[in-house]
Amino acid sequence: MPHKRIERVIRAALERGARPPAPPKLAEALPYAVLPGGARVRPHLCQTVARACGDDLPDLTDHAAAALEFIHCASLVHDDLPCFDDADLRRGKASVHCAFGEPIAVLVGDALIILAYETIAEAASNDPARAMGLTRALARSTGTPYGICAGQAWESEDRVDLSAYHRAKTGALFIAATEMGAIAAGHDPEYWTELGARIGEAYQIADDLRDTLLDEEELGKPAGQDSVHNRPNAVTAFGIDGALRKLHDALGAAIASIPSCPGEAELAEIVRQQAERLTPVAYANRVA
Amino acid sequence: MPHKRIERVIRAALERGARPPAPPKLAEALPYAVLPGGARVRPHLCQTVARACGDDLPDLTDHAAAALEFIHCASLVHDDLPCFDDADLRRGKASVHCAFGEPIAVLVGDALIILAYETIAEAASNDPARAMGLTRALARSTGTPYGICAGQAWESEDRVDLSAYHRAKTGALFIAATEMGAIAAGHDPEYWTELGARIGEAYQIADDLRDTLLDEEELGKPAGQDSVHNRPNAVTAFGIDGALRKLHDALGAAIASIPSCPGEAELAEIVRQQAERLTPVAYANRVA
Repeated sequence: MPHKRIERVIRAALERGARPPAPPKLAEALPYAVLPGGARVRPHLCQTVARACGDDLPDLTDHAAAALEFIHCASLVHDDLPCFDDADLRRGKASVHCAFGEPIAVLVGDALIILAYETIAEAASNDPARAMGLTRALARSTGTPYGICAGQAWESEDRVDLSAYHRAKTGALFIAATEMGAIAAGHDPEYWTELGARIGEAYQIADDLRDTLLDEEELGKPAGQDSVHNRPNAVTAFGIDGALRKLHDALGAAIASIPSCPGEAELAEIVRQQAERLTPVAYANRVA
Repeated sequence: MPHKRIERVIRAALERGARPPAPPKLAEALPYAVLPGGARVRPHLCQTVARACGDDLPDLTDHAAAALEFIHCASLVHDDLPCFDDADLRRGKASVHCAFGEPIAVLVGDALIILAYETIAEAASNDPARAMGLTRALARSTGTPYGICAGQAWESEDRVDLSAYHRAKTGALFIAATEMGAIAAGHDPEYWTELGARIGEAYQIADDLRDTLLDEEELGKPAGQDSVHNRPNAVTAFGIDGALRKLHDALGAAIASIPSCPGEAELAEIVRQQAERLTPVAYANRVA
């Protein structure tokens, strides 16, 4: 099972990071931030693209997928900090800084970023050149000027470049997911950038819909946060129907962008399923 | 000039990270955290070891050296945060969170960690297998359980494993410096671990001496911080003379540990010069 393969790599890396001489609180907080985890959307997207490209080095793919999840979890831990969203709840439990204190939360985020690059390096003997391509793609989507750090830093500006904000904060890691799937399987990542960008766009709109339409219990984290933090939200901008239409358009564009490859049809089907999963059920029939 | 080569790589990487579409505050804070910089001790150590090993790929060495400095600066920015040392001053100017706010300081630290791995990846085409070795060595010294994150996390524990604390918080990046110098030049890093560990030990003791003996103006950062934060300090433990003797012993052991290599004599001389530089002048004659 591809999903089980990702969890195995994730757990093994966390165990290595948490074993002695790691100090006890950090050792407990590190897996706390990653397990049991959310939907693992980005690692699965990476695996799916790799499979569509032939996936001749599945071990490298799994490590790339785990690296994506570590970066995603690091960004959640740091985003939840008091100086950003000050969120008490994440994935239905206390956020890392609420459970372990702020110093440990800063360090868990740092350690997870490092663990991501270490995890790629660990599978590098399969093909060092591909592993370096994975490192470059992940760094581009994580740091600055194109990655998550840059995206998050827009929240400290008085005048926000909205498209740069979304592309960097949410889109970049989806682009990394499709590109890294291709790189792990020895394909040119360039043809896969658009698919990641479109899925990222759809995911951002779906997240905006959920933030507006669901309550804290359904979300497993505080609801209505975009409005609290005065952040851009597709529902505020376009209304519910407008946002749903944009979600479907983005997923349509995603499917249209899939390059010719052995697994093209299967991949399109998976994106279609993703579309259904992303759309809040009660509102899906409004654009049916 | 080897030193100029490091600065060139550092500046080029910072410029790439700070260019559009990076948001303005992050773009300003990123170079602020790294330039004009301290003594660049770790990158120079890395270059020195590489030279002793023949340095057949100097471009890879320079990128490894710059990566070490980015990690070091990231750890300073995060260490200065209000939830850790809450330090207002660093290298004679306002710390990053004082100058740009806490959110930007968290993100600058994150971005510098990522920039370190990206910088290695950038020079990878020289030799992807060596670049992956560099990534592994840097990750080990940076994350958990052996690296800076683990070291810093000991400060959140009630009972501290002192030797694990020092080895991880300060020693690890010196070990990375010697190991990465060897790896960049195609040598086995294993023979270079001891040299890094001993120099790290010496550096820690010298830092303890400076923290106790110098004032804020001489240090360019708050003095007496170990006592304020109740951190272990060699002067408190062994007295000034005891600490000075330990400093000289560590540097002697460092020189003795240098493996047989083309640049052995030159390297020993550099460590001897380092010893003089590290010892506060007014106290040097006490152990002469």
